[in-house]
Amino acid sequence: MSTSNEPVSFPAGLEGVYVCNTTLSEVEGLEGRLIFNGFNAIDLAETRTFEEVWFVLREGRLPSQSELSTFVSQVEALSHLTLDEYKLVKKLRGGEPMSAFRSSLSAVANGRGFKSWMNRDKAVVAEEIMTLCALTPEIMEVLHTGRKPKLKAGNRGYADRYLWGILGKQPAEADLRALETYLILTVDHGLNASTFSSRVTVSTGADVGAALTAAVGTLSGPLHGGAPGPVLDMFDSIASVANVSNWVAEKMAAGHLFMGFGHRVYRTDDPRSLCLKRVAERQASPRIELAKAAEAEILAALAAKQQAKALAQNVPVRTLRVNVEFWTAVVLEHVGIPRTLFSSTFCASRMIGWGEHIREQIAGNKLYRPRSYYTGSKP
Amino acid sequence: MSTSNEPVSFPAGLEGVYVCNTTLSEVEGLEGRLIFNGFNAIDLAETRTFEEVWFVLREGRLPSQSELSTFVSQVEALSHLTLDEYKLVKKLRGGEPMSAFRSSLSAVANGRGFKSWMNRDKAVVAEEIMTLCALTPEIMEVLHTGRKPKLKAGNRGYADRYLWGILGKQPAEADLRALETYLILTVDHGLNASTFSSRVTVSTGADVGAALTAAVGTLSGPLHGGAPGPVLDMFDSIASVANVSNWVAEKMAAGHLFMGFGHRVYRTDDPRSLCLKRVAERQASPRIELAKAAEAEILAALAAKQQAKALAQNVPVRTLRVNVEFWTAVVLEHVGIPRTLFSSTFCASRMIGWGEHIREQIAGNKLYRPRSYYTGSKP
Repeated sequence: MSTSNEPVSFPAGLEGVYVCNTTLSEVEGLEGRLIFNGFNAIDLAETRTFEEVWFVLREGRLPSQSELSTFVSQVEALSHLTLDEYKLVKKLRGGEPMSAFRSSLSAVANGRGFKSWMNRDKAVVAEEIMTLCALTPEIMEVLHTGRKPKLKAGNRGYADRYLWGILGKQPAEADLRALETYLILTVDHGLNASTFSSRVTVSTGADVGAALTAAVGTLSGPLHGGAPGPVLDMFDSIASVANVSNWVAEKMAAGHLFMGFGHRVYRTDDPRSLCLKRVAERQASPRIELAKAAEAEILAALAAKQQAKALAQNVPVRTLRVNVEFWTAVVLEHVGIPRTLFSSTFCASRMIGWGEHIREQIAGNKLYRPRSYYTGSKP
Repeated sequence: MSTSNEPVSFPAGLEGVYVCNTTLSEVEGLEGRLIFNGFNAIDLAETRTFEEVWFVLREGRLPSQSELSTFVSQVEALSHLTLDEYKLVKKLRGGEPMSAFRSSLSAVANGRGFKSWMNRDKAVVAEEIMTLCALTPEIMEVLHTGRKPKLKAGNRGYADRYLWGILGKQPAEADLRALETYLILTVDHGLNASTFSSRVTVSTGADVGAALTAAVGTLSGPLHGGAPGPVLDMFDSIASVANVSNWVAEKMAAGHLFMGFGHRVYRTDDPRSLCLKRVAERQASPRIELAKAAEAEILAALAAKQQAKALAQNVPVRTLRVNVEFWTAVVLEHVGIPRTLFSSTFCASRMIGWGEHIREQIAGNKLYRPRSYYTGSKP
């Protein structure tokens, strides 16, 4: 609502601008540390289940054995689509998996009568959030297979239901654990665009279905990151360890952008990437030798380029490193997830982070209503 | 990503924070003037068609006669659902009209194969936006009636198709013009939460369907404003002109919040409200006498209360006025739109504003990625 056309300057894209408090996660980019509500995220990923970490995000502490088993049962009880919902989701199949999921989530929320959270019991609203999160594996299963979700007797929780649904059979223990590690590592990451979007939407009092739908849509953009499919395409294009060096030299000469390198926040190794590299090494995936060789060769080539640039322009050398997508690609492929579902898999994890951000926003809500600066003419 | 826990202070809800430039609209809250891309919005509402104003938002100038007729035909050509889309939207009926519209819009966008706008022809992306806007009247018609959209031969544009669809018959000229004035007045209004939300979502490179879906969800919250249904409920509760004074006195004593009064930005009359009051007067709605009496009585009561507060606390008197919802309620009711569809009607207008903001965002895109301030504990 400026009343003059004097130029104002402000950071584009809200770069560096604080917009809310959170206890949910903190990215320490300089130190390369990621915190989930008081806990080191990597420690959690290496030693805990997805439900334990979900509980940590909610409560700021680990659950007792009995709290955990109550929580696991609660989520499981909410995890099944009705027959009508299955039929509706089936109608929404096709196109981009993330877009089909966006529509399905929106439709299920409305079908269940979710309404504005304002003037309603916070526990009921929290259950609405948990319901949409819990239903995510079955919705994605229907979108992927078109079939009625199978009964997963004796399933070991959220990660198991998700992977079982995609593979169409009970996953091997090692694959389940690899996926669970990935899901934990990506469950939250400060205020990225999709998380911010969920908070903006719910801040008007909109129902939690609207907020999660908005977040899914925001996540689907290529600039959001977290879409490791192109990393696999790169591996395919390199084809063999013997070809790495020629391939990298050729692409460097052509000014090619390498997939899976560099991060906006981390100025040292992304701790999630290091953790996933360890997972990949344990998996002994056939990709592992190629991935390691490509990582080393590309990093060396990028370092040489940065060195030359630093000398020529008299600026400090910027060291690039692999980001979380690079090793995610190796891990998810080995687990058996098709690359067309890599983004959906990320989404299946981040749903829980969004849900907790939505709860946090509701608890201390303030409507987001920033200003635009008018650069048009006046009548 | 702060690395310390030193407290930082920042405006909650991005109040007063500039986040983008725009040429689309400007709210001059002190003067009570609203500008659409160089034009006085009230002048446009009183003299132009909805399509002319849509063109103004796009081009910053009025169309010539031939440009206008080309534009009107373009929109009309895109305004029809396929048979499959009609069937799908019908499946998504029920629940909250805005939530059903959110799911439908999302599903239609995905069904038509809309994808990230990045690395694609801007004209094609602009047509995707125009398509979702143009389809809005038919989608809302199916959601409201459940029937296949009727052929509206000789329809007079967007406003006509919308009203025809809701009423189930060709609207009277005066009703159409009243609705069209409303739609123009609410087509854009600076950077409210829903508009901001559409820009955040599309900033990741997400498809325009994702961005419009997010905006619809954000608009559906009660804090967004623009939901004049409760104003009618208030009129119903007052019941008669004779009862106004008792009703207001009773509600004032009970500390009741009156619907349709006060605005976050305007510090003088909301120009849209004045314009809609003139429309209501021309309509000679049976509500008009009651509405005028209620407006006068409530304003007098609020002024007395503010005066007392100013004296007691030694602060300046704040003058409250009716906002756009107050007279919108009278106008839309007379036109024949059920109050359950008031928010959808607002949405049918604002779709065009969001669409233009999305185009503007894409033209000079920068990913929105603000910071959160971590207030949790450290490991």
